[in-house]
Amino acid sequence: MTNPPQTAAFYRGEKSFSVEQLAPIAPAGGEVSVKIAYCGICGTDMHVFHGNMDARVGHERIIGHEMSGVVHALGEGVDGPSIGTKVVVRPLQACGDCPACNDGHAHICHNLKFLGLDTDGAMQDVWNVPAHTLHVLPDDLPLDHAALIEPVAVACHDVRLSELKPGENVVVIGGGPIGILVAMIARKAGGTVVISEVNEHRIAVASKLGFETINPAQSDLENAVSTLTGGKGAEVVFEVSGTQPGVDAMTQVAATRARIVMVAIHAQNPQIDLFQFFWRELTLIGARVYEPEDYEKAIEAVASGAIDCETVITDITPLAKIQSAFESLDRSPTALKSLIKVSGDA
Amino acid sequence: MTNPPQTAAFYRGEKSFSVEQLAPIAPAGGEVSVKIAYCGICGTDMHVFHGNMDARVGHERIIGHEMSGVVHALGEGVDGPSIGTKVVVRPLQACGDCPACNDGHAHICHNLKFLGLDTDGAMQDVWNVPAHTLHVLPDDLPLDHAALIEPVAVACHDVRLSELKPGENVVVIGGGPIGILVAMIARKAGGTVVISEVNEHRIAVASKLGFETINPAQSDLENAVSTLTGGKGAEVVFEVSGTQPGVDAMTQVAATRARIVMVAIHAQNPQIDLFQFFWRELTLIGARVYEPEDYEKAIEAVASGAIDCETVITDITPLAKIQSAFESLDRSPTALKSLIKVSGDA
Repeated sequence: MTNPPQTAAFYRGEKSFSVEQLAPIAPAGGEVSVKIAYCGICGTDMHVFHGNMDARVGHERIIGHEMSGVVHALGEGVDGPSIGTKVVVRPLQACGDCPACNDGHAHICHNLKFLGLDTDGAMQDVWNVPAHTLHVLPDDLPLDHAALIEPVAVACHDVRLSELKPGENVVVIGGGPIGILVAMIARKAGGTVVISEVNEHRIAVASKLGFETINPAQSDLENAVSTLTGGKGAEVVFEVSGTQPGVDAMTQVAATRARIVMVAIHAQNPQIDLFQFFWRELTLIGARVYEPEDYEKAIEAVASGAIDCETVITDITPLAKIQSAFESLDRSPTALKSLIKVSGDA
Repeated sequence: MTNPPQTAAFYRGEKSFSVEQLAPIAPAGGEVSVKIAYCGICGTDMHVFHGNMDARVGHERIIGHEMSGVVHALGEGVDGPSIGTKVVVRPLQACGDCPACNDGHAHICHNLKFLGLDTDGAMQDVWNVPAHTLHVLPDDLPLDHAALIEPVAVACHDVRLSELKPGENVVVIGGGPIGILVAMIARKAGGTVVISEVNEHRIAVASKLGFETINPAQSDLENAVSTLTGGKGAEVVFEVSGTQPGVDAMTQVAATRARIVMVAIHAQNPQIDLFQFFWRELTLIGARVYEPEDYEKAIEAVASGAIDCETVITDITPLAKIQSAFESLDRSPTALKSLIKVSGDA
């Protein structure tokens, strides 16, 4: 089989990508080639763009992991899914032999490789990945919507670890792309969800999606949550802002015995009101990526319509214009999720 | 029935107690009079002594709550336990009508009264308490040992909330009175316990009690725990130091998916390495006082010999000399638990 050259976008450092042709590479044994339809731009990809992760990714890396596509070819020893099947990739490669893997927590393997950062990723026509990373999609799921499954799986993992029960009060601190998805999944799980957000564009989106919102720059968040919950506070809090004010707020709005899920990645060490952890017996739960069951739940959530994909996806740009897509997203106050249309014929 | 005057120690402010005679007060309806045998000096009592809690306790308060005694008289409507029964008091009075009480968490009631701080306590011959606060002791349990049941119940609560499983690795950060009790209860629950402590006297006590110890001022705690656990880290960590270095250490020694129990009360907001919470999916659990089942477990632990009471109790002083007992404890580098012998005939 002779394949035409394929197109790939390489991160070249200093906020630049180069889109290049390269010879197709057949899948190795145990791998599957996936023709990439769409690939979303993740917050992590934006960190790469800004040069914050050069030590990890270098300047010859094809990034991208929030993808959807179809099976293109099967490597040696792989007997499915059949060519043309719609799939997404769970972009984690564990070592299989560290304490975390041995305890059944391969998603937080001590030597975890994240595909699309530690290896080449999905911003190319055809992506070769280990067969075990595939999840098969329903035939009728649109592939642009399917590109949201990876971040939705993050939200599913966060909500699962929170042990949210139907009828509980939920505060999501930070209404960006992940916060909005967490809010939608928490609502699907039966939570009564309030979003705390200061950006008026994001507040408008949250309202359009049917969420109660509070702007903590304009009103007292603690009082507002207390009023909404009959003085009880929120049984579940998601800290998605990654800011010290967000960390301050997470204990202020928490009910007695609340579970607070740390969704944001804090590069600095914020100060935390540990007295409130003692006083109200709060629990703080760190959550990272996802496990296979979170992917299955995310596929179901996107397929069922629980995620309003048309509102979340704010723009789609062809791979040839990836540079302008990153530049636009970087300065846009209104964008939520930007997708790259990778392969014209997937 | 005519009772002789009884003796009580009043906290009078500025590191001073006055021991006075007062007319006995019969138990009110629903109350039980307990003749107090022993009352331990809690860290909180020492905070009172230092004047840090004057706004809460005033200068006419009989403090004390780590007590043991025997039933002396029953108030109207109380039909047991019989006079002379050995008892301890779980010194919590909940409102019964707040969100925490309604959710079954009366021990963290929003309006909780702590007996011996918010009401008069056990540093008096006879203490009248609500009947529901009593726990009956085995007949053969020595009453000096029984005075440890309250702090042991704290340890039982902490270990229960940690969901410690037999065979798991445990690090207790801080080997003071509560840290030592947490370590003993964690060992009873099947944990392999290491105590991190900088005070050489406390290290000696911990070693005498059979615990592995690490002095983080002399060796690298993270490396030492890693070596002891085969690179895994501790599945359960108890932060009992109440210090920023302890808070730093708690994430450093934690295994993937570790549970960190916040036992110490942090008056300041320390900085916490939230990145490690994300990276290793750690959980932080706030724990406060105890629930009835923790008291029952504590009674069993003291009665069974799992707590080496003779080592933990370092001195016993009669109530008449309470002033010198507090002064001695305040400057002692070696004392663990100081008891007051309250009533000569209990």
